[in-house]
Amino acid sequence: MSATTFRRAWDDLAPVGRAPDGAGYHRFAWTREDRTLREWFVGEATARGLDVDTDRAGNLWAWWGDPDATPGVVTGSHLDSVPGGGAFDGPLGVVSAFAALDELRARGVRPVRPLGVACFVDEEGARFGVACAGSRLLTGALDADRARGLRDADGTTMADALRAAGRDPASLGADPAALARVGAFVELHVEQGRGLVHSGDPVGVGSLIWPHGRWRVELRGEANHAGTTPLADRRDPMLDLASFVQRARAAATDAGALATVGKVRVEPNGVNAIASQVTAWLDVRADDEARVRAVLAELEADEPAQESWTAATVLDADLADAVAGALGSAGLTPPRLGTGAGHDAGILAAAGVPTAMLFVRNPTGVSHAPAESADEADCLTGVHALTAALEHLLTREPS
Amino acid sequence: MSATTFRRAWDDLAPVGRAPDGAGYHRFAWTREDRTLREWFVGEATARGLDVDTDRAGNLWAWWGDPDATPGVVTGSHLDSVPGGGAFDGPLGVVSAFAALDELRARGVRPVRPLGVACFVDEEGARFGVACAGSRLLTGALDADRARGLRDADGTTMADALRAAGRDPASLGADPAALARVGAFVELHVEQGRGLVHSGDPVGVGSLIWPHGRWRVELRGEANHAGTTPLADRRDPMLDLASFVQRARAAATDAGALATVGKVRVEPNGVNAIASQVTAWLDVRADDEARVRAVLAELEADEPAQESWTAATVLDADLADAVAGALGSAGLTPPRLGTGAGHDAGILAAAGVPTAMLFVRNPTGVSHAPAESADEADCLTGVHALTAALEHLLTREPS
Repeated sequence: MSATTFRRAWDDLAPVGRAPDGAGYHRFAWTREDRTLREWFVGEATARGLDVDTDRAGNLWAWWGDPDATPGVVTGSHLDSVPGGGAFDGPLGVVSAFAALDELRARGVRPVRPLGVACFVDEEGARFGVACAGSRLLTGALDADRARGLRDADGTTMADALRAAGRDPASLGADPAALARVGAFVELHVEQGRGLVHSGDPVGVGSLIWPHGRWRVELRGEANHAGTTPLADRRDPMLDLASFVQRARAAATDAGALATVGKVRVEPNGVNAIASQVTAWLDVRADDEARVRAVLAELEADEPAQESWTAATVLDADLADAVAGALGSAGLTPPRLGTGAGHDAGILAAAGVPTAMLFVRNPTGVSHAPAESADEADCLTGVHALTAALEHLLTREPS
Repeated sequence: MSATTFRRAWDDLAPVGRAPDGAGYHRFAWTREDRTLREWFVGEATARGLDVDTDRAGNLWAWWGDPDATPGVVTGSHLDSVPGGGAFDGPLGVVSAFAALDELRARGVRPVRPLGVACFVDEEGARFGVACAGSRLLTGALDADRARGLRDADGTTMADALRAAGRDPASLGADPAALARVGAFVELHVEQGRGLVHSGDPVGVGSLIWPHGRWRVELRGEANHAGTTPLADRRDPMLDLASFVQRARAAATDAGALATVGKVRVEPNGVNAIASQVTAWLDVRADDEARVRAVLAELEADEPAQESWTAATVLDADLADAVAGALGSAGLTPPRLGTGAGHDAGILAAAGVPTAMLFVRNPTGVSHAPAESADEADCLTGVHALTAALEHLLTREPS
């Protein structure tokens, strides 16, 4: 039953925002592709007789049972992608949520709490630069005024993007009522690494989300003609970029952290023009904050401007134990995993929601790229594990 | 008289394609801005009773006298710009051409040869990547099939851009008949350097256009998640870019050449995604070809793919002497200057047209940037010099 649900949903999503020639997915917030994905979500929910709400941040919630009667158990993830992203990061958690719900009903489970399936908007921050924008808005961690003014690569503000998508930007903001409905949150996600490959397990349980942040560095030079300006007279910020990329890598190696320059903007970006300015974005993460701070300290002279920061998130240990216990009853012995990737689960946890994560094995370990992968058998084991965890949480009164 | 002409024309052109906040000009081939500039050219020509032709490459020619009676003397330049370019590179030569023509008429000069004012299309190659595309197509140095297939940053081909501009791409190609009308070519241009500042002259005469070329380097890596991929497992092409930029600078320093990486494309260019590929464009120039080749030899391992190459162009010495002599009669003692910048004049010279260049002093020495500059007094001296050169060439039978 859940295999059929899973496959059909997976096939429905496969073409949306997929670039030709295996170049991955392009599913950015408040675009046409995003609208198609949101319509798919509403369609799946409606077909199951679930009530669908949209909160003030634009996140979608499909409810089985009355979420205002008592706080519910929520599962889900997101449907957006990074540029050229993989198929699994996000959608696996949403599709597994619906499949698990079907499985619970097929088994005749009678929940004592409502079950919500959530689809968070703009998790990757690929368009406006702030990751987990939907969950951060929901909890108030991202200010609505700041969000409305964020611009995409074409200069479009989030406010204009919302208008273009038929939403009123004035209504954007924290939504304590929607958040209060979430008694516990369980996010299933493809693993972004090879921990489960090494341990030989199809599924793991999350323990910690690493502290991580994004910084922007402005490297200023002087525009001039590439053919007529003596080398000695140049102020070429491309050389500063070269140095910055190397120093960031060296600082991360020294600190035992991860540092990445993955996005660069060159002005004016002409073949025969010395650049006037290069903007570089730096992503730094580590298993503890001191290592992240050590990397930033090495790069202080470049004056990195913080664009986002997420402290270490220790996921709820009691909930993780309960989830692991439920999986044990289902014949699985999931290892505990930390992750360097940010997730909506981390934002909800930071806002005080008891939160757990399940990870599904990724043979390549690759994520945010077309090679991101998961075997169908492992995905179905993930659905099975999620079903067991939800059954456990839904059939007991919250402690 | 010519001061009035000059100022009015300069004022007409000033707003076209100008970015706000002093961020320079954006005038790319076959865009709306380009159309406005071309219409301005036709208007100026028509107001003077000149016949306007468009050749098969899309270059504009305004004729005083019958160009099919005997080969003419042509002066002019281009109206397009690099991204964020200055006001003078190109337009100064076109505006000065019309102003000189007015001055010749005002003086009652009776030419024995026709005078052409030329506006070459797509000189900067800012949109499709090939500099001097209009003059190269005219002479056959750029193949029409290759040109039609060139793509801009949005993926639009030149063929589609021509169609959008109301031109038939099938008619694009070499135009020997149009070229045969050019008995001699004189291009006036703002100096892109400070040679005339150092010598204290308002105007100079060109001697040599440096050999120069453009190469493309593809740095391939492996896309992956910036938060979950250990440093040791990464293949991050941003580090290869850093190394390439530094090695190109070092090779140029060693060879006494100029090398610039001014344009970069990062895929997928996401903050939290290790790049899968970085493409870098390299511009190399020197006063002789051996120095350029020495730079390329140092970068051989990066497999630079040549996108364009222009050999050293020695401008016509007899014509330069004649022009310098005419300027001497007008009270000017112009120095001879080489230039690292490519020009349509160089393309025509390489095709066998006797060609000369006049340079006007640039106080900042900056070019391809908003700080590009020329004092009005020097510009008017440039018009005066151009008028003297044209009078000399137009009133004598060609040798």
